[in-house]
Formats: sequence, structure tokens, C-alpha cells
Amino acid sequence: MPTRFLIGVLGGMGPLATVDLLQKIIAATPAERDQQHVPMAVWNVPQIPDRQRALAGIGASPLPALLDGVEHLNRLNVSHLIIPCNTAHHWFDELRSASRAPVLHIADATLAQTQLALAGTPSPRVGVIATHGTLAAGWYQQRLAALDIETVLPDEQEMDNLFVPGCYAVKRGEVAAGGALFGQLADRLAARGATQLILACTEVAPGLAAAQSCWLARSIDSTEALARRCVALWREQADL
Amino acid sequence: MPTRFLIGVLGGMGPLATVDLLQKIIAATPAERDQQHVPMAVWNVPQIPDRQRALAGIGASPLPALLDGVEHLNRLNVSHLIIPCNTAHHWFDELRSASRAPVLHIADATLAQTQLALAGTPSPRVGVIATHGTLAAGWYQQRLAALDIETVLPDEQEMDNLFVPGCYAVKRGEVAAGGALFGQLADRLAARGATQLILACTEVAPGLAAAQSCWLARSIDSTEALARRCVALWREQADL
Repeated sequence: MPTRFLIGVLGGMGPLATVDLLQKIIAATPAERDQQHVPMAVWNVPQIPDRQRALAGIGASPLPALLDGVEHLNRLNVSHLIIPCNTAHHWFDELRSASRAPVLHIADATLAQTQLALAGTPSPRVGVIATHGTLAAGWYQQRLAALDIETVLPDEQEMDNLFVPGCYAVKRGEVAAGGALFGQLADRLAARGATQLILACTEVAPGLAAAQSCWLARSIDSTEALARRCVALWREQADL
Repeated sequence: MPTRFLIGVLGGMGPLATVDLLQKIIAATPAERDQQHVPMAVWNVPQIPDRQRALAGIGASPLPALLDGVEHLNRLNVSHLIIPCNTAHHWFDELRSASRAPVLHIADATLAQTQLALAGTPSPRVGVIATHGTLAAGWYQQRLAALDIETVLPDEQEMDNLFVPGCYAVKRGEVAAGGALFGQLADRLAARGATQLILACTEVAPGLAAAQSCWLARSIDSTEALARRCVALWREQADL
């Protein structure tokens, strides 16, 4: 059993999204000095077969590489495991079985944050920006439906022309260009009634930030939500 | 012996400086997709006694905590170890002995970058921004002297009024305020003849960036230099 608090991060999907998470954990931590910050061990090894391609049936499974990451984090006796990639949660059950530490689900953290953000908003309609794999899994739609929140989803053309190219632009370092595509997708969802967004893919927030999109202010970012959950856990155990 | 390329990062000093390094490694990597990025395992556990206080004789030694970090990175079979904190290099020999992987020295990476940056500059004078511990160790002054480059160092009053408070401001999240102090220190060094700076403390570049300081453009950043060294090693082994 892990004896010390240590957040294990199964990262690399993509590497920049992992760094975005770390930055958000630090920014969300009230700390006067280094030693008050959240202790983290980060497996940021991006040599993992493409999750979107695997789920589309046109690429190798990322599961062996993901399990290798979990095994390495097990060696460090991490006390919690998080995965800053929504799509990788397709293999959540297998990863949870392999991890000696409990695994937090990014959609749970995001929905908790969504409830806080939308408290008091009459009839919210939430646009969900995510990969095909995440949308097909239905994690966000199901959780939002349970809260009586209506969802607005991208259509196939928007996925092919805006989301997917935006995502791969971020991954090859064209972060602002990717963000501009995500911004266009957000405008489309707004035109169909979305008043808020859930950024249910961890490449989206860095893109929108680099593009200085005004959409960030109306978004619940799954990375930020996961960061806040980690900080809350850290402060609970430290009895702060 | 490590069989795969894996950069091990002994981080947490402070946690934001470690994230700055990761971000700079990603930004410096020419990559078309996730899988081409540098694989990294990051020990970002900031519960390490304060290095500056230890070297001033008013705090516990960070060495046991640093060795604990090395031991954890050994468990992951990292192929190289880097330390994104100049001051921690005071314990370089002990850490090198404990690490199964070779340890890169941040001052070596920075001086290689300095030579590139200053090639062709007649009579460069380089201001060095660093902790008392780093300045007392003389790593930068010695290496610059060997290249016939004159150094300009902060005086005691500048250290006490500008550098030290700037450094701790970054550590408690007041990043731009810290950067403003570093900018004032840079102005002082310039007034004494410095034409370029070496940012020989990893808290400085995030501060100057947050303060949008024009000094960044005239600086050789030790974090950036370490990042470039890692990317070069990755590309060499991948034969790119």
C-alpha cells in the first residue's frame, strides 16, 4: 500500500496536454513555498499508439503501452493515478485493474466542476468538444443527462473539418492554429444553442488559450477539473 | 542498464520551473505527432528542504530528499538524469554517484548554448542571475572565464533586495511580480556593462516571461539550454 501522498500521472497523450495539467495543478494550489505544492510523479512517455486511430479501427491498440505506464507508476508507489487524456479512458477498466492506486475518472472530475459552474443557470445547454471515441463512449452525455442538462454535440462534418484537424495541429506544435479550429467548432455549437462548453479532450484548452479564444471563459475544461480534484485531495490529506 | 531512451527529471525545485522545462522540451522538439516527442519520467515532488537556506546554513540539507528522488528515477530505468534547478547542482557529485543513469550538468548545457549565442560578438560581457549558492560555487564564472568572457555579478544588496525576493515570489505563485524584480536586477547589471544575461536559476525565466520582460530576448536561459540538450540527445539516438 502506498504510504505517502503522490499523484501519478499517466501522461503523454499528448505531451503538451500533460504539461498543461501540471501547470494547472500548480496554479490551483494555494502555496507560500515549494514544499506546499502537490507531489507528482509523471510518466510523460508519448510513444503510445494513437488512441483515435485505434478506436477507429485503423491503428494498433494503445493498451500495452498504457499498461506499461501503469506498471512504471506502480513501481513508484503512487497513491492516486490520473490520466490527462479523455479518449484513453476507453481502457479505464483495464488500467484500473492494473493500477495498485485508485484511478480517478476525468469525466467524474469534470462533471463535479460542471455542477458547480452551472449552479443556478436556468436550462443550461452544454456543448461537448471531444474525440469520436469519447463521444461514442457517452461518458459526458450520460452524466449530463442524469443532471437534466441538455447536450449539443458536433456533427460528423464538424468533427472531420474542425475537431480532428485541430487536435492533430496541437499535437504537431501548431497550437494556436488548432485553437482557431476549436473556436470555429465552438461557434457552431453556440449557433445550435450551446451556452457553455465542456472541453472533453485535453488538447482543446491549450489550443483555445494559444488562440486567445473568448470561449475559454465559457468553458469547463476537463484538465482544469482534474487539476482541481488533485489539489482538493492534497489539501484534504494535509488537513489544510 | 537502461535499454530505452528515457529522460529522468529530478524536479520540484520549484515545481513551476520543472513544468517550464517540460514545456520548453516540447516546444524545442520538431514533431509531427505525439509519438515523436521526447519520452520523460518526471519526479516533481517539491517536499525537498530549501536549497538556498541549507547553503546559507539556516536549514536542513536537501540531500536525503534529492537521493530519494534519484532512487525513484532509478526504479524507472531512466537513461539520462537532469535537474532543472541550478542550486541543487551543489550536490551534483552525490547525485551522480547515486544515479544509475548519467547526469547532465545544467551549467555545461548552458555554456554550450552561450557559446552558440555569443559567437561573433566582440568582447561580450555576461550578467549572471543566480542564487548565492550557485554564484559561490562558481560554475558559471569559471566556465565563462575559460572562454575569455567577462562576467557581471549582482552585489549583495541586489541579491537581498531583488534576486532573493523575486525567487520566492515565483515560488509562491506571484510569478509576474517576481519577474519584475528580476527585470530590475537585469537593468542594474546592464548599467554595469552586461550586454547579455545568463539566467542561471530556473525560477528566473518564468518570472521574466510572466512580466513580459524585454530581457528575455537578451538572455541565455539555463532551462531552455537543458531542454535543447535533451532534444539533441533524443534526435541523435533516433538518428533524425
